[in-house]
Amino acid sequence: MNYFSSDFKLGILGGGQLGKMLLSDTRKFDIQTFVLDPSDEAPARLACNNFFQGDLLDFDTVYRFGKLVDVLTIEIENVNLDALEKLENEGLKIYPSPKTLRLIQSKAVQKEFYIKNKIPTAKGKAFKNLKELLVEFMDGKLKMPFVWKSARFGYDGNGVKIIRTPKDLETLPDVECIMEELVPFKNELAVIVVRNVKGEVKTYPVVEMEFHPEANQVEYVICPARIDLPISLKAQEIALKVSKAYKHVGILAVEMFQTKDDKILVNEVAPRPHNSGHYSIEASYTSQFENHLRAILNLPLGKTESKVAGIMVNLVGEEGHTGNVKYKNIEKIMAIDGVTPHIYGKRETRPFRKMGHVTIVNENMTEARRVAEEVKKSIRVISTKQ
Amino acid sequence: MNYFSSDFKLGILGGGQLGKMLLSDTRKFDIQTFVLDPSDEAPARLACNNFFQGDLLDFDTVYRFGKLVDVLTIEIENVNLDALEKLENEGLKIYPSPKTLRLIQSKAVQKEFYIKNKIPTAKGKAFKNLKELLVEFMDGKLKMPFVWKSARFGYDGNGVKIIRTPKDLETLPDVECIMEELVPFKNELAVIVVRNVKGEVKTYPVVEMEFHPEANQVEYVICPARIDLPISLKAQEIALKVSKAYKHVGILAVEMFQTKDDKILVNEVAPRPHNSGHYSIEASYTSQFENHLRAILNLPLGKTESKVAGIMVNLVGEEGHTGNVKYKNIEKIMAIDGVTPHIYGKRETRPFRKMGHVTIVNENMTEARRVAEEVKKSIRVISTKQ
Repeated sequence: MNYFSSDFKLGILGGGQLGKMLLSDTRKFDIQTFVLDPSDEAPARLACNNFFQGDLLDFDTVYRFGKLVDVLTIEIENVNLDALEKLENEGLKIYPSPKTLRLIQSKAVQKEFYIKNKIPTAKGKAFKNLKELLVEFMDGKLKMPFVWKSARFGYDGNGVKIIRTPKDLETLPDVECIMEELVPFKNELAVIVVRNVKGEVKTYPVVEMEFHPEANQVEYVICPARIDLPISLKAQEIALKVSKAYKHVGILAVEMFQTKDDKILVNEVAPRPHNSGHYSIEASYTSQFENHLRAILNLPLGKTESKVAGIMVNLVGEEGHTGNVKYKNIEKIMAIDGVTPHIYGKRETRPFRKMGHVTIVNENMTEARRVAEEVKKSIRVISTKQ
Repeated sequence: MNYFSSDFKLGILGGGQLGKMLLSDTRKFDIQTFVLDPSDEAPARLACNNFFQGDLLDFDTVYRFGKLVDVLTIEIENVNLDALEKLENEGLKIYPSPKTLRLIQSKAVQKEFYIKNKIPTAKGKAFKNLKELLVEFMDGKLKMPFVWKSARFGYDGNGVKIIRTPKDLETLPDVECIMEELVPFKNELAVIVVRNVKGEVKTYPVVEMEFHPEANQVEYVICPARIDLPISLKAQEIALKVSKAYKHVGILAVEMFQTKDDKILVNEVAPRPHNSGHYSIEASYTSQFENHLRAILNLPLGKTESKVAGIMVNLVGEEGHTGNVKYKNIEKIMAIDGVTPHIYGKRETRPFRKMGHVTIVNENMTEARRVAEEVKKSIRVISTKQ
């Protein structure tokens, strides 16, 4: 197949920052792209060959879009799967496959899948609605504390809650959900696996999410994770097993816990380029975006090792700021060696909105970590009018 | 100044592969761009915010385009300078400045500039036309062999010739030109200098052009050059002197000869991102394109050191092939670790047309050089119909 400067057309469902970063590589290879996104201000509206505005959950919109392209991929899981299944039945190549997406779209189904495939995961149970969960609780079968998770994406609000007291149950919405044992863990890790159509597979190094000691929010994604080699090998082995079980094609990000007693438990997966792999643009021989593209086009995979240590800091909108965005102190952080800001291209900031990220690379991890802290303390995502 | 996700507009004259690669960084920073190019198939027509088709040498076209933007830069030198001078007089920020471009656009003026500024260069002389040169020759003042160069860019055909016999003189066109002493050299080197508006300046490592032993064509651009440290320091020192003399803002590529007796002579310069710096996308902490952008926007410059050794191989159209392009064996080279093809996005190949380049990176230079040869031998730029 001739993909380069040819009539071949790649479709991407979703035009957010992940789509935008993927387009950087379709441009590099001169591969024609069609992008569908509901927003006319989608970050990926530029740099694609054709942009379509439309609802990713609407059957007809997704089906008609799929009919225009030769291979279809996603940058967001929350798309109309019935349309994808019909397109696949009619011969369209879709990666990840609609079948995989169905297994991932619901956290309840994901949980059952891990158990069935003997993939280590925290103990848990699925519930069709809130009432089922409350019945279970009243029967004394749910021990607090436990973790409650909404089964579906796109639930508006916080999809994960820790339930410590009966009072916490009152705050839960009436949706399909799962409960999970609250596992004491010492590290939150992630492994990105890439697998192409013919089954060639590679893993990226294990990354570590470092949390803010008080706010309990991920502050840094660190590659490589500062963990012992046996843990690292175990995490990669489990991630490979997950990718194989899903017969996944493309990038699969596997998020895991390293428990206090050094077990690895799979938390959840994302069947696409993922926040935990953004560091790869600057630090790796091949970025997760280029490798996603290589995988879904059945090209040979690129080297996943790192050239240098990499740390990623998310840029999220500051509380109390809504309106046209301003990246305060961005010039200050750009003056530091090895610092690269990525600005996603959203004109308007809102509290906690993902507006960009900053990658810090250095030959030395300790120095990278020091710089990351300096970056985190300096840059602020505010609005021009306060 | 707020450049990121703001109303700020950057104009780029020229929409070829250099413009296209620059846009990869304007997208990364979400900086609005306007591009002007004569071709509706220009590689940079995508990924800019607004594309205009028009003649870069036409006064009105360039002037009107300049009126739309806040800062103007170029990716090709051959543009209407009268329009730029008028725009600059009216307050537009233009980098590189029209004055610098005037000093560079003509090789005759360039030569005089080096001599005036005590920058080492091969001995030479400028001629208004062919007749002047022939008179000089008949007066016995031109010793053969010598190098003849057309003074202007955009001369259709070969702009450089070595004149060894009187018969060679008959092939010369009647244009403004220079003659230069033919200097025996052992290496052709280049240094990329970046300088921002406030005068912060950095050099990239010296690169080496390795020639095909028979064809006398550049085969590889190698970073770092395999030369002794004193030569490397001298080359960087001279490049800095050139950049300072021009008061250049942005990327300046300084091409040089290392003579048989280890002198460094400046050959010519390019006041923009340059072929000799393409390796920087994969090998350097900051690519030449990102640093050009940082420089012209007066942002702090990024680190110019390399993460790993880098070698660049140009992809040019094969002789005997004209028509829709096909990159034969591209999958084969993509299977090698550390190999990244860049496809510029020209649908039609022609003999010797620059269609793309391939970067090879490796921790080890010897291994990078071996892979580069493998790449060079494998990939072919041909047409789909032969």
